[in-house]
Formats: sequence, structure tokens, C-alpha cells
Amino acid sequence: MEYETPLFFHVMEYANRAEGDVIDMVSGNPDWEPPEALREGLREYADLEPDRFQYAPSEGLLELREEIAARRGVDADQVVVTNGAGEANYLAMARALERDRGDEIVLTDPVYPYYPGKTTMLDGTQRFVATDDKGRLDPADVREAASEETAAIVVATPNNPTGAVYPESTMAALVDVAEEYDAILISDEVYDHYDLSGEFASALGVDSSHRIVTNAFSKSMAITGVRVGYAIFPPELVENAKSRHMLVNVATTRPGQYAVLRALRETGPDYYEANRELLRERVDTFTDALDTAGAEYTTPRGSFYVMARFDGYPGTLENVERLIDEAGVAGMPGEAFGDSRSDWLRFALVTPRVEEAARRLAAYFE
Amino acid sequence: MEYETPLFFHVMEYANRAEGDVIDMVSGNPDWEPPEALREGLREYADLEPDRFQYAPSEGLLELREEIAARRGVDADQVVVTNGAGEANYLAMARALERDRGDEIVLTDPVYPYYPGKTTMLDGTQRFVATDDKGRLDPADVREAASEETAAIVVATPNNPTGAVYPESTMAALVDVAEEYDAILISDEVYDHYDLSGEFASALGVDSSHRIVTNAFSKSMAITGVRVGYAIFPPELVENAKSRHMLVNVATTRPGQYAVLRALRETGPDYYEANRELLRERVDTFTDALDTAGAEYTTPRGSFYVMARFDGYPGTLENVERLIDEAGVAGMPGEAFGDSRSDWLRFALVTPRVEEAARRLAAYFE
Repeated sequence: MEYETPLFFHVMEYANRAEGDVIDMVSGNPDWEPPEALREGLREYADLEPDRFQYAPSEGLLELREEIAARRGVDADQVVVTNGAGEANYLAMARALERDRGDEIVLTDPVYPYYPGKTTMLDGTQRFVATDDKGRLDPADVREAASEETAAIVVATPNNPTGAVYPESTMAALVDVAEEYDAILISDEVYDHYDLSGEFASALGVDSSHRIVTNAFSKSMAITGVRVGYAIFPPELVENAKSRHMLVNVATTRPGQYAVLRALRETGPDYYEANRELLRERVDTFTDALDTAGAEYTTPRGSFYVMARFDGYPGTLENVERLIDEAGVAGMPGEAFGDSRSDWLRFALVTPRVEEAARRLAAYFE
Repeated sequence: MEYETPLFFHVMEYANRAEGDVIDMVSGNPDWEPPEALREGLREYADLEPDRFQYAPSEGLLELREEIAARRGVDADQVVVTNGAGEANYLAMARALERDRGDEIVLTDPVYPYYPGKTTMLDGTQRFVATDDKGRLDPADVREAASEETAAIVVATPNNPTGAVYPESTMAALVDVAEEYDAILISDEVYDHYDLSGEFASALGVDSSHRIVTNAFSKSMAITGVRVGYAIFPPELVENAKSRHMLVNVATTRPGQYAVLRALRETGPDYYEANRELLRERVDTFTDALDTAGAEYTTPRGSFYVMARFDGYPGTLENVERLIDEAGVAGMPGEAFGDSRSDWLRFALVTPRVEEAARRLAAYFE
């Protein structure tokens, strides 16, 4: 079997090896502070008795699952704490495929490249539905692409890489399509705390046994390396997912769960709002500079990303590496997200140097 | 698809819910101290800059992989840092099966129940080879069971649940069988630091492109909850395994990797020897008391476990639950490890109260 693995780590390593000063806008690694209570939770954990260093329950610490469940309006039994959103999406897609209602996964174009990679690994096949130039997804197009072969429809809102935020009507319509074809809507909501539009709508808003919601604390708490996420399953689907989680990972890291629980309890809305505000300022700064450079770009309504197009400079891996070497700015090739964005580059606004990056880009493409 | 999930968590929960005082000897959760440097590593991590809270490289922190590689005499490129031995075994078994050289996994009887569970999840089929009453594995029996259908042979040394330690000649012969049938020997060596016999031999001692070694710091550092393990692949097999790791988990928890690296560097042989000594004493205490009780039992040459047989009390889940309620001792049903040990109970020596436990058992079966 050949896997297509996402290029993120490859480009990050290329940027790290580069000789000059490179502004890293490759991956969605926040550069802002995690909550102080997260750090405090790790310190506190370090001093616990030896029994607290042993396996957490396989599905996650009960108190953490209850805290998540209360916030999301579900039953704690529906929550599986995972090794980040990465494992949550893997469990969700595997769970959909093993229902034997078809082996097709409906994805959007552009797409977050882990989804097609996971699909291949799980012996599924991809079917892509195009979004418009602003990343908007028309549920009618999804309905047309769906069939008896559809195991799952996977969407991300707020979206990576387009920055689109799907309205409530879209989420409801997508659940509806999933129900019509006895498929599963998988809604990856890992950027929910970075909704800049005020229009984010969780798939949990629609009650259905045909949708799974995945999430993590990786982005909301700026801790992508800690690896604590979760998936919320309908009661009918959760048991097998717990089994797979146990058979693959046994359990999720306990110091991470402990620290996240403390941070969840003690971190107020100010923390999240400050990060959104920072992001808003960076979007303005970066897109203003892109305006000056005469580039075409997207303005995100959520998530961390701006896509930009420079005349005569398509979004290939080769061009990304050239930009690292010659302009000192590292982005992601648009072609990594699907054919529709192959002319584009994606820049993650996770550096205080977005203005300098945009200046470098402007100078380079002048 | 129906999964068989190991019963460990189920029995642990049953024991926790019990009304009286229960001595927990269910799971292989050490009750001794992790290395002080492990705690110190977590404290230190809590104060690092935000960039250190982000994704580690997918295959693991380079310094940790180099430290492991140096100790095991392999190249760092062969090492994948995983979410414990659980993920390491999953990656290894998946890697063997996706070579399309057959779908059969040869396992021992008795068996650590995660192996047959993973086999089913990965669409493989199990073939069991009996070990003798001391848990010794005759490579000739493995050779006879192997065929063109064999994808992998999975063994654990020191063994859970039998306590057997396979000699160097057995390991060499097992690699030989794997080579003969173009299969992969997977050697799970997570109890290597608890070899009480001095005869432990790693499969790494035999140079071959047909063996994968899995391990973790879960047992050696008494941190089953932290979830840091690793697998060592032949160069020919490592790339796809790294891809699967990336697609399932993205990366392994970074605070855990950081703390383990520090503990690896700063923890001397005394720490490990003291834990072995503790275990030796507990083996003596527990088996002496079992002698008094007139029970049949195994004396482990490695790992944490004693298996015991009480007349007229077979090792069923029902009997284990009865023992929890009526005798205040929690073990694992032998039937969880395969038909050959269905008359037996397994007790993990991970409590300071092994003498009291044995006394309770003696009184109960008197």
C-alpha cells in the first residue's frame, strides 16, 4: 500500500534547514501562550503520587469527559478522549467505513490533506466536492456527489485552508444528506475558538445518529504538541470507536489530560478572545500588505490561514521551497490542498512577523 | 465488524466499584516511583516557551530517537516514537500485514490479549502456537505453524502472562522462521528491564530485515499513563510505518517525550535494579504464601505476573468478579489469555500488599 502523507512536516523541516532567516508560516502551530492553568496543571501533575502516572481510563479521564460533555451538551458516554484531532478524525472515519454502507468518503476541494491520506489508509475512496472561490460549500453539491456508496462526508468548519465558516443551514443540510444516504457526517471543529465571523455552527446543533464531531485543545489552547483531543459519537456508534481507540493507543496521555482539564476549568473567555483579537489584527496586517503587493488573497472568516496568489508563481512544492530560500518566507503549497488551489500558497498567521513576511513577499514578487 | 477488546479496563473498573477493600493485582501498572528526572522533566517542560508546546516531529523528537538508537545499536532513522507500546505493536502488525504476504498472525497461547484484538481489527487471522507449562516456546512449533500465509509472528519476552524469558537461541530461530516464510518477527520487549533471569535476549541481537522490535518506557519508568514507546523497524519497512503513525496520531505527546528523554539521560542502573529487587521480593513473598495455600503457580523469570490455579475455581471472568467481592483480591481471568490457561488466574505484583493478598486467597480457598 502506498500512503500519501501530508507535506506539513516536510516543508517545516525544509524551512528549518534553510540558511537564512525564514519566517515560518507553514503549519497551524500557534505562537501564542497556552493558558497559565495548563502550565500549572503540568507542574501539579509532576508531583502526584505514582498511581496517577499510570493508565487513565481508555476512553479518557472521567472528569475530563464530563467537562467536555457538559460544554457540548452531550452525554459523557459519547465522548472519547483522543491523541489530538488527528486520532479523533481517524477513529471517526474508521467508524464510518466499518459500517459497511459503502467505501466512499466525500471530501471538499480544497481539502485538509490528512483526510484523503486517512481515507487511503483505511481502504476507502475519495470523492471531492468543489467549494466556491471563498471556500463556501453548497450542500446541494454534496447531495449530488453522495450515493449509496457514501460512508462519510468529512468537513472542517472553520475551514483549513479556506478560512470559510459554514452557516447553521449548511450544517443542517449536511446532516440531512448523511441521513438520507445512511452515511455519517464528520465535522472537524478544531478551529471553533477561532471563529472570527460569529457565525460558527457546530454539527452538534443538529440532533442525529448520523454525525460525529471531532475537536481538540491543540489550537484553542495553543498546545498542538500535547496531543489531547476528542470525538463525540452518537450512542449507537461509540462502543466500536472506544474499542479501536483501546486497540490502537490503549489510552491518551494522562499528564496532558490532567493539564487540559485544569485549563478548561480555570481559563476564562478573555484568554480565547485575546487570541482571536490577535488573529484579527494579523489578518488585517497581512492582507493590507498583500494588497500593496497586488496579490490576490482570501480573508479568513475563521481559522489561521490566508491563501494568496502571485502572478506566474503557482503553488507547487518547488515554488514553496524557492520562496523559503529566496524570500525567507515559508508557506504551504496550494497544490497540497487539491487541484483547485494549485495556483495558490497558504500562509498560517502564527508568527508575530506577518507584516515583515508580507513585505518580503511584496519585495520578492515586485 | 466486531472487536474483541481486552478485559483489563473492565476488571479494573469492577474492582474500583467494589464495596470492600480490594487489593488490585489486575493490570501491569507499577506502584513504584517513576525516576525523579522524569518528574523534573515535566516540571521543566511546563516552563518552556510556547513553541515547545507545539508538534514534535511526527516520528519523535530527534534527540530522543538518537538516545534510543544509541542504546539499542540501531540508526535513529529506524526509530518511531509512539503512543506507548500499544501503538508500537499496532504499527508493527499493520506494517507486516500490508506487505500482502499473507494475512495470518502467529501468536502464542497463552497470549497477551491485545495481539489477537489488533489482529482482528487489522483484518488478519490468528494462528496460535502452544507454549509449555512454564511458558517456553519451541521454535519448531512456530516453524510448523508458519506458512506462506504468515504475515507476522508476534512474541513478548519477558512474557506477559507467563513470565517466561526466551533465550537467545529461541530469538534467533524465530527470526529464521520469519525469514524463511518472508514474514516479520515482531518482538515486544516492554518488560526488558524486568528480566529476573539474566537471560533476556533482544531480537535486535539478530540482524535481519524481517524483525521489528517494540518497546516503551511505560513499565521501565513506571509511567504507563504517559504513553511514550517506540518501534524499531528495518530500514526497508520504516517509511510506511512513519506514514501510518502520522496519519493516525500525527505525533506523540511532547511533554512525555521531553520528560522521558531527561529521565533516560539522568537515571542510573540503580533505579532499574531497585525495581527488579522489589519485584524479586514480591515474587518470593507471594509464591511462599501460595505454597502455604496449596495452590499451583508459575514463578516468573521476568515481567510482573504470577499465574495461580486453585482447585475447582477456573479462571473465568465470573470467578474473578466473585474473588473481588468475596476475597478482596482482584486478578485477571486466565481465560482472557487463551484456552490453555482457562483454569488459572493471573496476579500482577504491583502492590505492596502481595503478602496480604496471598493470605486472603489462602483463607478464601481453605
